Amino acid sequence: MADEYKNGMKTGRVEALTDGVYAIAMTILVLNFEVPRVPKRSPDLLDALLGLQLQFYDFVLSFFLLAVFWTVHHRQFHLIKKTDDGLLWINVLSLAFVVLVPFTTSIYSAYRGVMIAAILFELNIFLLGSLKFAQWVYVTHNHRLVDPGLSSKTIENGKLLNLVTPVVSVIAMAIALFAPDSSTLAFLAIPILIRLIRRRG
Amino acid sequence: MADEYKNGMKTGRVEALTDGVYAIAMTILVLNFEVPRVPKRSPDLLDALLGLQLQFYDFVLSFFLLAVFWTVHHRQFHLIKKTDDGLLWINVLSLAFVVLVPFTTSIYSAYRGVMIAAILFELNIFLLGSLKFAQWVYVTHNHRLVDPGLSSKTIENGKLLNLVTPVVSVIAMAIALFAPDSSTLAFLAIPILIRLIRRRG
Amino acid sequence: MADEYKNGMKTGRVEALTDGVYAIAMTILVLNFEVPRVPKRSPDLLDALLGLQLQFYDFVLSFFLLAVFWTVHHRQFHLIKKTDDGLLWINVLSLAFVVLVPFTTSIYSAYRGVMIAAILFELNIFLLGSLKFAQWVYVTHNHRLVDPGLSSKTIENGKLLNLVTPVVSVIAMAIALFAPDSSTLAFLAIPILIRLIRRRG
Amino acid sequence: MADEYKNGMKTGRVEALTDGVYAIAMTILVLNFEVPRVPKRSPDLLDALLGLQLQFYDFVLSFFLLAVFWTVHHRQFHLIKKTDDGLLWINVLSLAFVVLVPFTTSIYSAYRGVMIAAILFELNIFLLGSLKFAQWVYVTHNHRLVDPGLSSKTIENGKLLNLVTPVVSVIAMAIALFAPDSSTLAFLAIPILIRLIRRRG
Repeated sequence: MADEYKNGMKTGRVEALTDGVYAIAMTILVLNFEVPRVPKRSPDLLDALLGLQLQFYDFVLSFFLLAVFWTVHHRQFHLIKKTDDGLLWINVLSLAFVVLVPFTTSIYSAYRGVMIAAILFELNIFLLGSLKFAQWVYVTHNHRLVDPGLSSKTIENGKLLNLVTPVVSVIAMAIALFAPDSSTLAFLAIPILIRLIRRRG
Repeated sequence: MADEYKNGMKTGRVEALTDGVYAIAMTILVLNFEVPRVPKRSPDLLDALLGLQLQFYDFVLSFFLLAVFWTVHHRQFHLIKKTDDGLLWINVLSLAFVVLVPFTTSIYSAYRGVMIAAILFELNIFLLGSLKFAQWVYVTHNHRLVDPGLSSKTIENGKLLNLVTPVVSVIAMAIALFAPDSSTLAFLAIPILIRLIRRRG
Repeated sequence: MADEYKNGMKTGRVEALTDGVYAIAMTILVLNFEVPRVPKRSPDLLDALLGLQLQFYDFVLSFFLLAVFWTVHHRQFHLIKKTDDGLLWINVLSLAFVVLVPFTTSIYSAYRGVMIAAILFELNIFLLGSLKFAQWVYVTHNHRLVDPGLSSKTIENGKLLNLVTPVVSVIAMAIALFAPDSSTLAFLAIPILIRLIRRRG
Repeated sequence: MADEYKNGMKTGRVEALTDGVYAIAMTILVLNFEVPRVPKRSPDLLDALLGLQLQFYDFVLSFFLLAVFWTVHHRQFHLIKKTDDGLLWINVLSLAFVVLVPFTTSIYSAYRGVMIAAILFELNIFLLGSLKFAQWVYVTHNHRLVDPGLSSKTIENGKLLNLVTPVVSVIAMAIALFAPDSSTLAFLAIPILIRLIRRRG
C-alpha cells in the first residue's frame, strides 16, 4: 500500500547523486588555486608557481582522500542489495562532509601551520571516515541490507578497512597539537594500512 | 509516425539531468563560505570560524532541504512508468528553483534577521515543494503516468507527504513577518511530520 | 581488427557526458546573480532584489533554452541507434556552445540594451540550434545512424522542429539591430512554433 | 571471502565518476572568461570582445583536448571488461590532471607569450596523455583486463594512437622554448595524426 510510495529506493540513483557530488567536489578543489599576479616574465612566474607547491600538495591530498572515500562507497554499494531511509540519510550526511572538503582544504592552505586550520581539515576527514564506518556497520548489522549469504569474514574485514581513515585522522589531529604543518603527512599511512589489512584478510 | 520523434522520452535521462542538477546545487552551497581573513594564529582563526556557525546552519539546512526534495523526486520517479511533455516541463521548472537555492541561501545568510531575505528563501522552498506536489497530482491524475494498478491509498498518501513542505514553508513565511531570524526553524518540523504521516499511512 | 578499438562508441556514455555538461551549465547560470550590497533593512533589500528582475528574466530564458536543447538532444538520441566519429564531434562542438551560454548570458545582462551584447547571446543560441539541426540531418542521411525503418515523415518533421530555434535566433538578431532590449522576446515564439508543427505532423 | 569486499569494482561507476569530472572540467573552462568592464556602447563592447579572441582560442583548445581524452577513455573502457586497483588508481591520477586543465589554461591565457606558462599547460597535457597511454599498456598487458580474444593488432594500434598526444606535447614544449606564443598550435596535429594512424590500421 503506502509502502509502494515509501520504499521507492533504487541503489542506482543514490549512486548517481553520490558520483555527481564526488565528481564536483573533486573538481572544485582546483578553484583554490588562484592565477598568480606577477610580472609577465618566465623567472617571476616560475617563482610564483613554485610558491604554490605546498598548496599543490594540499590539492593532491584532498583529491586522493576524496577518491579513497569514493572507492569505499563504490565497494560498499557493490555489496548493498537494497536501500532504506537509514542508509539514505547516512549517505546524505556523508555527502555534506564531502562537499565541505574543498572549503576546509582552502582554510588549511590559507592558514598553514595554524593548529586550528589543520584540526578543522582533519576533523572533516575524521567525520567523513566515521560515517563510512557507521554506514558499513548499519548495512551489515543482521545482514540488514546486504546479501544474507555475505560471510562474517567479509563483514569484519570491511569494518577494519573502514576504521583506517578515522583512526589515522585522530592520530593526525593529535600530531597537529604539536606540529600542525606536518600533521597531514599521517594520511600517507592510509594506503599502506589498507594494503596490509587486505593482504592479511 | 511523427510520434516516434515526439515521444522519445526515457525517464532514465530525466533522472540523470535531475541528479546532476541536484548534485551541483548541493555542492556549490559550499561556495557561500569564504575563507576568513584574520591573523594567522589559532585563537583568531577559531573566533572567525565560530563566527561562521550561523552560516554553517544555513548550509546544513539548504543541503538537507535539497536532499529531501531529491528523495521526493526519487520516490516519485520510482512509481512513474513513462514521461510526457507535461511532466518534463514541471520537472524542468522545479530544477530552476533547485538552482536558485544556493543564491537565496546566500541572501538569507548575508541579510540575517531581515524579513525580506527570510521570505525570499522560504518562498523558494515553497515553490519547489509546490511543484513537487503538482508533479505528483499530474502524474497520478487518472493514473496518467503511473501503473494503472497503483492503489488510491498510495496516491493520497503521496499527496499528503508532498504537502508537508509547502505548508511548512507558508508557516515559516508567516513567522518571518515577526521573527525572521528564527523562521527557518519551522523547517525542522518536516522530518517529524513526514514520519507521522508515514506511520499513519 | 583495429576497428574494435576505433568503433568503441556507446550512445550511453555520450548521453552521460552531455547530461553532465547541460546540468552544470544550467546550474552555473545562477552564479551570474551577485548578493546585493545594501543596508540590512527590508525595504533596501527589496529594492535591490526588484532591481534584479531583468537579470532574473535572463536566467529563466537561458535556463529554458538550455532545457529545450537538452530535450532535443534527448529526443534525437532516443532514435539514434549507434554513434560514429561524425556524431561524436558534432555533439562535442555543440557542448562547447552549451558551456558558453552562462558567459554570453552574463554579457547580455551586464550590457542590457547594447546591440552587440544581444547579438552575441542570440548568435550563441543560433549556433547551438544549427548544430542540433545539422546533427539530425547527419544521423538521418541515408538512415546513417537511425533505424532503417524510421519513416521519412518522422525525419522531415524532425528537421522542421530543429529549424525552429535557428530561424527564431536569426529573427532575434534582426530585431536586435533596432531594439536590442526586447529582441530576446522573440524566443518566446519557440514553444508556440514547436506546438504548431507537432499538431500538424 | 574477503575478496567479495575487495573486488567490488564495476566499470560502470568508474565511468560515471569520470564522465562527471570531464563534464565539470570542460564546463568550468568558461569561468576563465570575465565579463569585460567597458562603457555600455556597442563599439566599446565589440572591441573588448575582440580582445578576448586569443582567450577564446585557448578555451576551444582545452575544451577539445579534454574531449579527445574523454573519447580515448570512452574507447578504452569499451574494451575493458573488468577493473582492478591498478586501473582504478591510474584513472584517479589521470582525473587529477583533468581537473588541473582549467587552472593551467588560465595561467596560459594570463601569461601569454611567457615560456613557463606555455610549458606548464603542455606539461599538463603531456602527463594526461602519458597516463592514458600507461592505462592502455596496463590493461592490455597479458590481456589483464581486456577480452582474451582481443587481437594484438588492436592492442598495438591502441598504443600508437595513445602515443600521439604525449609525443605532440613534447614537441609543443620544445617549440615553447623558442616561441611560446605559437607552441600550442602543435596540438592541431593531433586529429591529423590520429586519422593517419587509423587509416593505416
